[in-house]
Amino acid sequence: MSIRTATSHPPTAAPQDMRGLRLEDAPSLRTDLSVPTPAPGEALVRVRLAGVCGTDLAILRGYVSFCGIMGHEFVGEIVAAPDAPQREGQRVVGEINVVCGRCAQCRAGRSSHCERREVLGIRGRDGAFAQYLTLPLANLQAVPDDVPDEAAVFTEPLAAALQITRQVHVRPGQRVLVVGAGRLGQLIARVLRLTGCDLMVAARRERQRALLTADGIRWVSEDDVGAGSYDVAVEATGAPGGLALARRALRPGGTLVLKSTYAGTVPVDLAALVVDEITVVGSRCGPFAPALRLLAHGLVDPTPLIDDRFPLADAEAALQRAAQPGVLKVLIDCR
Amino acid sequence: MSIRTATSHPPTAAPQDMRGLRLEDAPSLRTDLSVPTPAPGEALVRVRLAGVCGTDLAILRGYVSFCGIMGHEFVGEIVAAPDAPQREGQRVVGEINVVCGRCAQCRAGRSSHCERREVLGIRGRDGAFAQYLTLPLANLQAVPDDVPDEAAVFTEPLAAALQITRQVHVRPGQRVLVVGAGRLGQLIARVLRLTGCDLMVAARRERQRALLTADGIRWVSEDDVGAGSYDVAVEATGAPGGLALARRALRPGGTLVLKSTYAGTVPVDLAALVVDEITVVGSRCGPFAPALRLLAHGLVDPTPLIDDRFPLADAEAALQRAAQPGVLKVLIDCR
Repeated sequence: MSIRTATSHPPTAAPQDMRGLRLEDAPSLRTDLSVPTPAPGEALVRVRLAGVCGTDLAILRGYVSFCGIMGHEFVGEIVAAPDAPQREGQRVVGEINVVCGRCAQCRAGRSSHCERREVLGIRGRDGAFAQYLTLPLANLQAVPDDVPDEAAVFTEPLAAALQITRQVHVRPGQRVLVVGAGRLGQLIARVLRLTGCDLMVAARRERQRALLTADGIRWVSEDDVGAGSYDVAVEATGAPGGLALARRALRPGGTLVLKSTYAGTVPVDLAALVVDEITVVGSRCGPFAPALRLLAHGLVDPTPLIDDRFPLADAEAALQRAAQPGVLKVLIDCR
Repeated sequence: MSIRTATSHPPTAAPQDMRGLRLEDAPSLRTDLSVPTPAPGEALVRVRLAGVCGTDLAILRGYVSFCGIMGHEFVGEIVAAPDAPQREGQRVVGEINVVCGRCAQCRAGRSSHCERREVLGIRGRDGAFAQYLTLPLANLQAVPDDVPDEAAVFTEPLAAALQITRQVHVRPGQRVLVVGAGRLGQLIARVLRLTGCDLMVAARRERQRALLTADGIRWVSEDDVGAGSYDVAVEATGAPGGLALARRALRPGGTLVLKSTYAGTVPVDLAALVVDEITVVGSRCGPFAPALRLLAHGLVDPTPLIDDRFPLADAEAALQRAAQPGVLKVLIDCR
């Protein structure tokens, strides 16, 4: 028996069942989900690999209310594209915001803030922890041949890291601190390293530190972060303690980048922000094409961050593994 | 009998007494203060007019701990300048940060954030509610002849308003909201108007609204501020409610300018800042030369904001008057 999933498309003539990790009250692996039918302008994508992100874990903890197939980091291949049959067979990654193109934000060139957006596996649209997904063709970017699936699956979080340099002009001579060396912090550090800035990462765990050292990136324990000495500090822990550390590390007139969506409401000393003329920049999704370029040119290699890999049938175990302290990227093989 | 004031200079051969409003535990008018002696590189300034600022009132409420002569907004004339006698007689206003010129911030061109700074009437240096003050010659800017004292005394807060357009590129087509139409909000609105932006001011009081209308600036009641519709919002109330209103008014990707130094620690929804990619900019002191140009060219006329004027002998009454709800600028005549 097939059930309709969050994105409700008309059933195909011969509905096909698929496997996927669906969240209702709790996540559960289902084998009776319908293979979705692409809407006009969309493509059907067979998922090869998906990645578990901190946001997935935050969703499980109730950060946002979502009901549907989880997951938003993936690499796959187009298996049906009625409006662009020449793209069938193409290996792709996908921008996660599905936008209307007509609202004020879209028309102003801020489509990632579309007022009617759906977000793959996060808001109103079935995600990537499944054998198939659909996305608009415009969201799907071809993956260069020399980027393996295990690197391409990092495109979405790497794009999120690149959003920092899109929003903030990080200059070669500047002192930059990344607070947190988890999944996202590691990618952020690898992106910021490319600016030639004087980079430091506040890292807690031995494994995090070893990974940074292997890429020539300096780390420091949180206790040893110099106060008032960084031009830019990036908060990538999602914890109030990380925010306080990043704030304290900044020089007057410095820039604090917030890169975590799950810190919630935190007391902030606004008077001190004014006196020290701090700029705080909230930063979310980023550009895919530059991320693919960095991967294709070998300028960022995210594959050492892969800690484990599970078949889709064990997706629940993959989430549990990703939630263990200190675990970096966990992949789900959806083929 | 003369007592030594917060800035301790060697007593002159023939010490002269002066009148001033000195804060210890409470503000009190004193007639036995020493006329200060300019240190090398400094000038002695006879104060003509001084203005009462929200920061003065915040100091009285304990926002910062300060002991000395209050006041930082003034216009006066140089009466002694041993290192630049040609400037004696010059009518001047004064930048309030007295800086070391040698610390990391000064050397990086951020001298208003000097690590060893004294701030006139705010931190470690006697201020302007007195017959005389001293400041480094470099802090003293000549006032053009066609700017009356009653306008020149607004140079410091007008410079603070200009710091917004120094930090944030406010574009002609943008929708800009100023929250608060008090002393500072009125000046901010008059500065932002010059950008050609689509300006709106959230104003509570009839008098505030009438002043805005008289300058062709549109206002709106707080309840009628449209949500999610402004590119830039400036918080100029110093109250958490003003912050919430400014935040709510911003479109995704918008810029929130914090212009009040006395809101303290406030709960902020950081996750929402990230999701909406809001930039928050703390903004404090600004450039004097552009402020004097705007006054000289008649592009900003602050004099309608003057609500009352007291002689220095009644400085305590001036502070009380300035603290009354809805009162805008109160001047103290120090001659």
